[in-house]
Amino acid sequence: MPLIEPRTLKGFRDYLPEAMIPRERLIDTARKVYRSYGFVPIDTPALEYEEVLTGKGGAESDKQMYRFEDHGGRRVALRFDLTVPLARFVAQYSNELGLPFKRYHIASVWRGENTQRGRYREFMQCDFDTIGSESLTSDIETALVIHDLFRALGLEATVHVNNRRLLNGLLARLELGDRSAAVLRALDKLDKVGPEKVAEEMQAQAGASPAQAREILALAAVRGTNDEMLRALEPLVAGSELGGDGLAKLAELLAAVRAVGVAEGKFQLDVSIARGLDYYTGTVFETTLDALPSIGSVCSGGRYDDLAQLYTKERLPGIGASLGLDRLLAAMEELGLVEKRRTGASTLLVHFDAARRNDYLRLAARLRAAGVGVEFYPEPKKLANQFKYADRRGFRFALVAGENEWANGRCQVKDLAAGTSVELAMFDARGEAHPELVAKLA
Amino acid sequence: MPLIEPRTLKGFRDYLPEAMIPRERLIDTARKVYRSYGFVPIDTPALEYEEVLTGKGGAESDKQMYRFEDHGGRRVALRFDLTVPLARFVAQYSNELGLPFKRYHIASVWRGENTQRGRYREFMQCDFDTIGSESLTSDIETALVIHDLFRALGLEATVHVNNRRLLNGLLARLELGDRSAAVLRALDKLDKVGPEKVAEEMQAQAGASPAQAREILALAAVRGTNDEMLRALEPLVAGSELGGDGLAKLAELLAAVRAVGVAEGKFQLDVSIARGLDYYTGTVFETTLDALPSIGSVCSGGRYDDLAQLYTKERLPGIGASLGLDRLLAAMEELGLVEKRRTGASTLLVHFDAARRNDYLRLAARLRAAGVGVEFYPEPKKLANQFKYADRRGFRFALVAGENEWANGRCQVKDLAAGTSVELAMFDARGEAHPELVAKLA
Repeated sequence: MPLIEPRTLKGFRDYLPEAMIPRERLIDTARKVYRSYGFVPIDTPALEYEEVLTGKGGAESDKQMYRFEDHGGRRVALRFDLTVPLARFVAQYSNELGLPFKRYHIASVWRGENTQRGRYREFMQCDFDTIGSESLTSDIETALVIHDLFRALGLEATVHVNNRRLLNGLLARLELGDRSAAVLRALDKLDKVGPEKVAEEMQAQAGASPAQAREILALAAVRGTNDEMLRALEPLVAGSELGGDGLAKLAELLAAVRAVGVAEGKFQLDVSIARGLDYYTGTVFETTLDALPSIGSVCSGGRYDDLAQLYTKERLPGIGASLGLDRLLAAMEELGLVEKRRTGASTLLVHFDAARRNDYLRLAARLRAAGVGVEFYPEPKKLANQFKYADRRGFRFALVAGENEWANGRCQVKDLAAGTSVELAMFDARGEAHPELVAKLA
Repeated sequence: MPLIEPRTLKGFRDYLPEAMIPRERLIDTARKVYRSYGFVPIDTPALEYEEVLTGKGGAESDKQMYRFEDHGGRRVALRFDLTVPLARFVAQYSNELGLPFKRYHIASVWRGENTQRGRYREFMQCDFDTIGSESLTSDIETALVIHDLFRALGLEATVHVNNRRLLNGLLARLELGDRSAAVLRALDKLDKVGPEKVAEEMQAQAGASPAQAREILALAAVRGTNDEMLRALEPLVAGSELGGDGLAKLAELLAAVRAVGVAEGKFQLDVSIARGLDYYTGTVFETTLDALPSIGSVCSGGRYDDLAQLYTKERLPGIGASLGLDRLLAAMEELGLVEKRRTGASTLLVHFDAARRNDYLRLAARLRAAGVGVEFYPEPKKLANQFKYADRRGFRFALVAGENEWANGRCQVKDLAAGTSVELAMFDARGEAHPELVAKLA
C-alpha cells in the first residue's frame, strides 16, 4: 500500500512541544487570574446549528464560517468566535445561571480566511465577560483583570482605555448619531492613512460636513497624560449628556485603578481607540506591550448594552475582553521571552546500570512524590546518547548513579546549564527522597 | 425580527460552570502527572485532510467521521481520535522530535455516532504516549503514570494488566495466529454473553475447533492473586516463545511496581482484558474505580509495534494510554465526589457601602496578591440579595465591612458553610492584606 503523505491541512498549524509549553503556561496564568476574580469556566460545542451562528455575524464572518451538513441532515457550522456561543448560552440557561454571570471561555475557533501574515484558520480565544451588570465597578474590574494578567505573565503592558460615549455623544450633538458605524470605520484607519483621508472618508461614507469631520478628528487627536486629557476633553463633549457621562466614567475608572495602587501610566486614556465593532457602547480597552507596541493590541474588549438580543427578549448588558493568545505568543517569541524547553520535567534520571532499573524507578517515584519532575530514560544506552537527549530536550539537571553511587546511597547531580556537578544522598532515613536532593532539583 | 431559538446542536452538550470546574480540575491534575514524568504537550488541528484521517480508520470510524469540503475545495474531516493525528504528527516531524518522544495531548474529538446512554458526539480525550521505545521500562512507567493519576485525583482505582503476547502466543501454537482479530472480538464479549456463546462465535467466526476454543477460554478464565495467576499461566503458554515472553514481561512489570512501593492489589493481572483493537501487541491496561467498577474502564491503553506505518517507513513502536475524562466525571458525579461549586474564588466581598467602592477594590486586590480568590459584588445591592448570590454560587466566605468596620480597619468574615462569623483586621502596617485574614480565607 503506498504511504499517505503526512501533512497538515493548508491554513492550519501543529503545535510542537516548544510552542505548546509556553502556550499552556499562558493559558494556565489566564485561568488563574480569571478565577481569582470569581470568573468561572464554561464550554460550548465546536459545532452549532448554522442558524444559531449566522444570526449575528456580519457578511464577513458568515463567508468565513465552516458550514456543512451533519449525519442527520442538519445544517451545522464550526463556531467562529466565543461571543456568539456565549450569547446563545446565556439566553438558553438564563434561569440557571443567575446574574451577574462571570464566565471565562478558552477554546478554539475556526475561520476560513486568507492566511497571509501568520494568521491561521484555527486559533484559540481566551475570553472573560461579566454579564448582567451595568455597574462601572465591572468596568473597573475588567481593567484590573487585564492589568493582573500581564503582571502575572511578567510582561510590561499598557492598557489603553476609551469610552464610546465620548464619540457617540459628540455624534449625537452633530446629529450624526445614526452614522456611528461609518464614522468608526473611518476613524479605525487614522493610524494608517492619516487625518486627511479619514476626513474624506467621513464625508463620503458618513455624510459628515468638513466642519463636522474636523470636530470629530479634534476629539480623536487629544493626547497627553490622563489628567491633561480629561481636562482637554471636557469642552469637546460639552452640550452632550452622553459624552459628559462617558468622560465622567473614564475619570472614575482612572481614579479607581489609582486608588487600588496600580502604577500611574499602566492605564492610558486613549481616544483613538474605536474598536471597529458597532457592538461596544461604553468603556473600551486595548492593550499594548511596552516592548513591542507595533504588534498591536494583545487584549481588547469593552462594554456592550445587549449581548443576546437575537435569542432572548431579556436585556443582557455586560463587559468583557479577550486575550490574544497567538499574537501574544508571537510577540513573546520575538522578544526572546520564550524558553526553548522541550520537557515537562526539570530532571533527567540517567539509565546507567541496567541491573538497577527498579531502584532508579523508585528514586524517580520518590522525587515525584516530593514535587520534582523526573524523566527516567527508558533504556540503558551509552551515557553520551542520554546526555545528548538531555541537551536536546533542555533538562536542567541530570542524575547519574552507577554501582559506586548506589553502594553509598549517593548520586551525581549535574547542572546541565552551569556545567557543574555535585554528589548528594538519594534517600533519607524513611526511604523518601532526601530533602537536600529535592531542594537542589526544585 | 423573530428570535432565534437558543439551543445546543443535537448530540452535543454545553458545560455549565458546575460541570466545567471539576473537568478543569481533572485536566489540570492529568497534565501535572504527565509532566512530572517528562511528557510534553502537543496540539494538532481539529481539521485534517480527509485522506490523512481515513487512511487508518476502520469502516466504523470512517462512517462516524464529520467530513466536508473547505473553502478551497479540499476534502477535510474533523479528527475522531488523537491517535491518528499523533501518527501523522510523528511521521511528519520525526527529524525534529527525536526519540523517545513522550507526548500528551488533551483535546476534543468528534464522532457522529448514535447518542444513546449519555454519549456525546464531541468529547475530550486525554492521551499520553511514549514513542520510539521498546523497553519494558516504558511499559512500567505507563503503569505508574496511571497509578499516579488516580492517586492525584484522590480516587481508589485498580489497574488491570495483561499482555497480548499470552493470547497471541497461544493462538500461534494453535495455528490460529492469523485469526486473532476475530478471536479478540469474540473474547471481548465474554463478560456479556458468557463462555458458551463466545466458544460458538470463535468456531463460527475464527474457525477454531471446539478443543481450541476451550483452550483459549481456559487462558481467559485464569483468576487469582498476581502470583497465583503467574504460576497458573505458565503451563498454558508453555511451548510458545511469544507467550512465554508475554508472561515474563508481566512478571517483570508487576515486580517493578512492587519495588517502587505501590500497594499490592493496585495492579491486577487480568487475562480477560483484550482491548478490542487489533493494534495492541504487548502490555495492555484497563483501569476500574474500586467504588464503581461497573462504569467500566476509565483509563485504557497498551503497547503497539508500529504507530505510523500508513505515513512512514520508519518503524515507530510505542506505548500509551488514554484517560476517559467524561466517563470519569460521570462516575465521580455518581459517587458524590463532585463539589457543586459555581465560583472560581473562595470569597465574596460584599458591596455594602457604595461610597467605599474603591476601598473594597483595594482590599480585594491585596487579598488576590496574597493568593486569595475574591469576587467583589459589582453593585451595592441589599445584603440579602448578595448573600443569596453567595449561597447560589457556593462561596466559602463572605466579607462584610460597613462604615464602623472601615473606621477601625476590621471586617466581618462569615464562614458560609459553618454559619459562624469572626472580625479580623483587613490590612497590615504596610497596607498589604493582613496575614491573619489571608490565613483565614486561604
